[in-house]
Amino acid sequence: MNIKELIRDIPDFPKPGIIFKDITPLLANSEALVYVADQLAELIPTNAKVDKVIGIEARGFILGGMIAQRLGAGFVPVRKKGKLPSDTYSKSYGLEYGEDVLEIHQDAIKKGERILIHDDVLATGGTAKAVCELVEQLGGEIVQCNFIMELSFLNGKDKLDYPIASVLQY
Amino acid sequence: MNIKELIRDIPDFPKPGIIFKDITPLLANSEALVYVADQLAELIPTNAKVDKVIGIEARGFILGGMIAQRLGAGFVPVRKKGKLPSDTYSKSYGLEYGEDVLEIHQDAIKKGERILIHDDVLATGGTAKAVCELVEQLGGEIVQCNFIMELSFLNGKDKLDYPIASVLQY
Repeated sequence: MNIKELIRDIPDFPKPGIIFKDITPLLANSEALVYVADQLAELIPTNAKVDKVIGIEARGFILGGMIAQRLGAGFVPVRKKGKLPSDTYSKSYGLEYGEDVLEIHQDAIKKGERILIHDDVLATGGTAKAVCELVEQLGGEIVQCNFIMELSFLNGKDKLDYPIASVLQY
Repeated sequence: MNIKELIRDIPDFPKPGIIFKDITPLLANSEALVYVADQLAELIPTNAKVDKVIGIEARGFILGGMIAQRLGAGFVPVRKKGKLPSDTYSKSYGLEYGEDVLEIHQDAIKKGERILIHDDVLATGGTAKAVCELVEQLGGEIVQCNFIMELSFLNGKDKLDYPIASVLQY
């Protein structure tokens, strides 16, 4: 299945000079949605046990739940500042266009739990790195960071000390 | 399965006087996650065809994808203002604590497509009503609005002209 055909380029979003990869046509296609969730689950090494899948707000939530189900894992949201209601740890990070703060519930991960981190796009790696640091702070073991697509030319991989995998590369 | 035990009350969030229903313990439990997705899919009448499931940003994204898969439907995100990259229609709405704007891509739904709207909580119904209006604007037919939980005492049901269903009622 050629899912690249279902990802469209939006020039100058969210700011001039950025070409945004829009996955909404892919999500809207029922076969592509299941296919990409299958592919994401298959990126994980066969014998790797995963206790929890982290989805990064907001697009990482969509496939995150579907991957968790495939792996028999729970789902943990990492959210923007002020969105999680209970006690959190937070981490600020730079992203392709700006800066932001991510938070995780302090009780979201138990020490030693095996964690998959999922987001839709790996760009500069700033977001994923911040999430890795939050998982480390809670004592989780990161199995893999996986993405629907990797913008290889931005070298996000170099920022991350854990296995990286993606369904599509640009 | 008693999933109410996995929903915790957070007093005074996001503002004083509100008791927030936190679903993160439910999401983190792999069995409960699959159970609630199954229950949400079973709320839909047996013979009702659904073309697309709308998930409302952000918590509606998590189960929205899982429900779409169960129904063989595509997934459409409705997002906060400025988050969707292509041409949108937007609708402002009042919610339990404040006001906001929701957007949908103009090409997200074709005329006559059968739509399920999903969010985690039905409170005053303002959010769901705005989404119903966006779907109407695109010519979609709303099969049902479904929710993990309904805060019945806020009478959100009264605002909505479509079938409503929820796994849990408070």
